[in-house]
Amino acid sequence: MAVGLGDLPVMHPVAGFELGIASAGIKKPGRRDLVVMRCAEGSSVAGVYTQNAFCAAPVVLCKQRMQSAARYLVINTGNANAATGEPGLQAANAVCEHLAQLVGCSVEQILPFSTGVIGEPLPVDKITAALPAALADLSVDHWGIAGEGIMTTDTLPKGASVQFQHKGVTVTVTGISKGAGMIRPNMATMLGYMATDAAVSQEVLQNILHDAANKSFNRITIDGDTSTNDSCILVATGQAGLEPITQAEGELYNALRAAVNQVAMQLAQAIVRDGEGATKFVTVKVQGGGNQQECLDVAYAVAHSPLIKTALFASDPNWGRIVAAIGYAGVEHLNPDLVSVFLDDVCIVADGGRAQTYTEEQGAAVMQQAEILIRIELGRGDCTETIWTTDLSHEYVRINAEYRS
Amino acid sequence: MAVGLGDLPVMHPVAGFELGIASAGIKKPGRRDLVVMRCAEGSSVAGVYTQNAFCAAPVVLCKQRMQSAARYLVINTGNANAATGEPGLQAANAVCEHLAQLVGCSVEQILPFSTGVIGEPLPVDKITAALPAALADLSVDHWGIAGEGIMTTDTLPKGASVQFQHKGVTVTVTGISKGAGMIRPNMATMLGYMATDAAVSQEVLQNILHDAANKSFNRITIDGDTSTNDSCILVATGQAGLEPITQAEGELYNALRAAVNQVAMQLAQAIVRDGEGATKFVTVKVQGGGNQQECLDVAYAVAHSPLIKTALFASDPNWGRIVAAIGYAGVEHLNPDLVSVFLDDVCIVADGGRAQTYTEEQGAAVMQQAEILIRIELGRGDCTETIWTTDLSHEYVRINAEYRS
Repeated sequence: MAVGLGDLPVMHPVAGFELGIASAGIKKPGRRDLVVMRCAEGSSVAGVYTQNAFCAAPVVLCKQRMQSAARYLVINTGNANAATGEPGLQAANAVCEHLAQLVGCSVEQILPFSTGVIGEPLPVDKITAALPAALADLSVDHWGIAGEGIMTTDTLPKGASVQFQHKGVTVTVTGISKGAGMIRPNMATMLGYMATDAAVSQEVLQNILHDAANKSFNRITIDGDTSTNDSCILVATGQAGLEPITQAEGELYNALRAAVNQVAMQLAQAIVRDGEGATKFVTVKVQGGGNQQECLDVAYAVAHSPLIKTALFASDPNWGRIVAAIGYAGVEHLNPDLVSVFLDDVCIVADGGRAQTYTEEQGAAVMQQAEILIRIELGRGDCTETIWTTDLSHEYVRINAEYRS
Repeated sequence: MAVGLGDLPVMHPVAGFELGIASAGIKKPGRRDLVVMRCAEGSSVAGVYTQNAFCAAPVVLCKQRMQSAARYLVINTGNANAATGEPGLQAANAVCEHLAQLVGCSVEQILPFSTGVIGEPLPVDKITAALPAALADLSVDHWGIAGEGIMTTDTLPKGASVQFQHKGVTVTVTGISKGAGMIRPNMATMLGYMATDAAVSQEVLQNILHDAANKSFNRITIDGDTSTNDSCILVATGQAGLEPITQAEGELYNALRAAVNQVAMQLAQAIVRDGEGATKFVTVKVQGGGNQQECLDVAYAVAHSPLIKTALFASDPNWGRIVAAIGYAGVEHLNPDLVSVFLDDVCIVADGGRAQTYTEEQGAAVMQQAEILIRIELGRGDCTETIWTTDLSHEYVRINAEYRS
């Protein structure tokens, strides 16, 4: 059902960043549910994490360890290790300690990640038993199967890869992500991993990731539910052989930032395209806001309205539901007479009511498309925000009524 | 599908308040879609209305006319007359002017209400043509058929009626409401009409209605969509023959306030029970909050989560989704270790994780019920808030994908 999402693109390897996959049998036997990633010595690692107060045990450990020089990432699906209290922290750490012993580094250099059912005890023994197989599988060429290894209810793996030239040297940014449900990231997506062979100081790398996440992962929503486990990581291995980036300026910094933004945007949009039950990929763009926040408030009111989402599913240009959502978004002293709404290029609402030129046929033609732009002009200022979302289908209800996430 | 909602109760007539129904053929021929209500001379009328910035034309007129002594209410279904701009205001007023001429009062004494499709021109001629039939039908005994006359996607009419004695005199409070979809009232529900034969000054009556709406209509949500047309009216005809209530104190005031609260609560809960596609009636009670707002934030996060709503539909005690929603509700410095969650009397979460005593069978038993209490203890203070909501079913998607509301 994924909207406009096909096979993975060419996933350029990143020198100094290897990925290995194994089957730990966490939820289903035989499924490849464990991924280990190795960062070359001297790599910088940046991370952004969920703002959910019930953040998962691995997220707590990751946050504590961001100041250490991380060497390994270990990711399991099938169990979120969230809302598991102190035993959950001990379980996550036990996996890290086991991996640290196997590879001969300190436990603080291991970043753990989990996704799956909330509130179940993490099966530590199953995971540790599968670690040697994952380590034996490490390769710079395993981005694609790692993208499959982190899937839960995703129907397709998600990846993006960009290269650019600097002083005759090719620099690569490659990444994978997973999503599907409980998707309204707040600081990062469900899980996203990006790596580059540029050399970047930790501080600059963190800023690059923060900005990229804010423009991509933090601008998508499927069901408005912010997960307990959202995590996004950006690793810079430095193995391209270029000068280190230590300031947020210069040609190389700008080129890398643009490449990371591009990869993050593709990964984030891929999550929406593969949203649970999605039949439409919807861009909501709010222009003419007095500030960024009111643009976002309107955009999310539209993107979260079950009435608009079911109308999108039905390809019904039910613009009354859109103006109702704009009206309750909480924008103070909003003047309806200045509001206009467009479906792609078709003006459906002008001066607060149905546009005089609008015909139902025009709206229906746009709504038939798999990819739709809802553009809203508030007439209050110069601010713009854009977010991406999906429709609400029978399939979403079926998946979430039947699946224990 | 309505949950625990049966035939209307005995609807005690209110002296001085008559209701008349007719077919105007607004959306479908033959459907009784027009209701007129007549308040006896000297009645006080209070109203609360939607906060949606795109509030409908009739809401704009009602708000302007609340200071006048309203004599007639005119309600059509099948067309919301919302997002219709200046022509919409003229259309609503044209209906009022026609009615004013027929009955010989001023146009300011007519309060118009509409519900149905947003953004379509109001068919004024059809409505005015049916007004004489509605007037000819006026009777104090027509609460029940008026309850049917204001239905849209509602499957059952909603009514409540309470009587109490004061100094040997029987005082009556009777009301009807409609709901079904686009239900997250903000100041009042979709449409609600209550009347009493007590004598109450307009100011006191407005306070009674405001308080009652805040405890009932403003505490329900079906899909989180605040309508453009929410309106709730309370009329006091004074025909019981008791002394007028002009202060917010005394035995009669307290008894009337309690009776209005009871009727409003029953009408509001009836709207939830008949929510679009509802198979569950869910009470979300948040206790131990540091203030009322954070209790409401948590309650609405739980009530609006599509993941929790689909789990309720599936009778799945998926408590992980509940703690995730609590976690993203935006309560500052929430300490997960102090949070506990109950399904009815079953403690499912304690100290931030799964309760030690909890078994899946206990949770599953509660979730099988048609009526479920989700009780959340935040461990931050003494504040409590309660709201009511429904599950999210295939039927909700079907109704809203197929029905042009």
